[in-house]
Amino acid sequence: MKELKIFSPATVANVSCGFDVLGFCLDSIGDEMVVRKTDKKGIHITKITGYDLPFDPEKNVAGVSALALLKDVQPDFGFEIEIYKKIKPGSGVGSSAASAVGSVFAMNEILGRPYNRTELTNFAMKGEALASKSEHADNIAPAIFGGFTLVKSVAPLDILQLPTPNDLWAVIIHPQIEIKTAEARAILPKNIPLKDAITQWSNVGSLVHALHSNDYDLLSKSLTDVVVEPHRSKLIPHFDLIRETVLKHGALGCGISGSGPSIFSLSHGHKKAQNVAEAIQNVFVKTNIPFEIYISKINTQGIKIL
Amino acid sequence: MKELKIFSPATVANVSCGFDVLGFCLDSIGDEMVVRKTDKKGIHITKITGYDLPFDPEKNVAGVSALALLKDVQPDFGFEIEIYKKIKPGSGVGSSAASAVGSVFAMNEILGRPYNRTELTNFAMKGEALASKSEHADNIAPAIFGGFTLVKSVAPLDILQLPTPNDLWAVIIHPQIEIKTAEARAILPKNIPLKDAITQWSNVGSLVHALHSNDYDLLSKSLTDVVVEPHRSKLIPHFDLIRETVLKHGALGCGISGSGPSIFSLSHGHKKAQNVAEAIQNVFVKTNIPFEIYISKINTQGIKIL
Repeated sequence: MKELKIFSPATVANVSCGFDVLGFCLDSIGDEMVVRKTDKKGIHITKITGYDLPFDPEKNVAGVSALALLKDVQPDFGFEIEIYKKIKPGSGVGSSAASAVGSVFAMNEILGRPYNRTELTNFAMKGEALASKSEHADNIAPAIFGGFTLVKSVAPLDILQLPTPNDLWAVIIHPQIEIKTAEARAILPKNIPLKDAITQWSNVGSLVHALHSNDYDLLSKSLTDVVVEPHRSKLIPHFDLIRETVLKHGALGCGISGSGPSIFSLSHGHKKAQNVAEAIQNVFVKTNIPFEIYISKINTQGIKIL
Repeated sequence: MKELKIFSPATVANVSCGFDVLGFCLDSIGDEMVVRKTDKKGIHITKITGYDLPFDPEKNVAGVSALALLKDVQPDFGFEIEIYKKIKPGSGVGSSAASAVGSVFAMNEILGRPYNRTELTNFAMKGEALASKSEHADNIAPAIFGGFTLVKSVAPLDILQLPTPNDLWAVIIHPQIEIKTAEARAILPKNIPLKDAITQWSNVGSLVHALHSNDYDLLSKSLTDVVVEPHRSKLIPHFDLIRETVLKHGALGCGISGSGPSIFSLSHGHKKAQNVAEAIQNVFVKTNIPFEIYISKINTQGIKIL
């Protein structure tokens, strides 16, 4: 195999109660990339469509993760990468993770899979760090493993694959505003009340139990964030209106996707997700903020060859 | 049915990472109680052996929970209670919860089971509150439901039954020292670092996943407490020595049972638990503190009729 086209999915990190550890994978939104083995050594980004991103691999997220893998393999050949960027950078659905994952996944396939998914996560984290200034895996893990994931620890890297209920759908609204990652980080308190922490870990525990038990009611009751959302939701205009709307229209719960501005909601079944999406559409169109809405089944496969 | 003898088990609350929400049930330690329907109205405690506890039902944990249930039923008869107290009050393995649960479980059986287990938990919490000055369910829930439980919320009461791995054993060491509950509470910080809270909820999530997946390695890695143990372990002499000893002898992990002074450890299989118990015995005997050691399979049934 000399060339591969892949689909690298968007992802939702945090999932309300699971700040910094939980994430899930989307199906209908993602980047495409073509990766090609070349006689020329090194990593060469030859094409970028969709968004204005650097061609220098050391300044490009997909390039940095590719270089990390290449350094480990040290082959006597190289790779060309074409990036068809579809996930808007800064939208809060793992745009940089999708880039970081795409190159290393494709290279690993072309090389005959010398690395397992945890090792690929490690390479991809190098790329993610370029975008977010810290190595974290809460978007990378669901992009690589699919479904719901829990990053048990980053060093050493330990990723748990959680089960995904049968018919679970996400609706994402992306208000086209910019939230600076630095601002989203700075707004968080360094210390939190112990009683809020207890509420949060109770919800993480019950969310994991709900996923294992296919229990949509419990999933709904667990999608609560008393730690991060009260702070970060202030950065997202009409957040409370969105939440009120999706819950009124049968969503199981909603929250900030990653550090925002996108907001995710989860629904049981496609029809309910469609109702939720329409309801958001009708409400948000009255604000003067441009937005996009996506409906996606939870993607249990993760990144894939096209 | 006019009379019933029951076994009300000891329990371990918190389970390292799950402060205030997780608990599990023990098998070989517990109180016995006889509850008898009487023509005379009200609750009458007629016998107490083992420890010096009040006969006045309003001052006795088992009495207070019994009175709460009685008030709800308002029958034209009453109940006599005999308490054969075997769990030392203040030992940290749910002594007051066992008392609180025993009376209401037996009364419910005699009455023909008008209440479900969550409703019984509610009554028992009234008794628990007499002992601990706050209504909590992290010992009551495992005593009533058996196995591992997660108290998702107290108001409204929402208890989750988690699966128990096949061959999981606990070793409890009870150093015969007194820790005042007030002191164990006061030593806890009101606020904790967000980064520690994240570690904790990651461990709660992975512990629940480990229980569902019968994954002893992951269970072992999840039995970590970076929030409460660093403070409370100071109140327990030789805590670090015990931990070091049990881990060296193959235990999956250990922690403070409830607010102490008892320390629990978990092991895969009876033989490993025996090794751990012997190792603790050999080490602790050199201190000048009297102690007791128990080995118990995780009790998946909970409270039962004898």
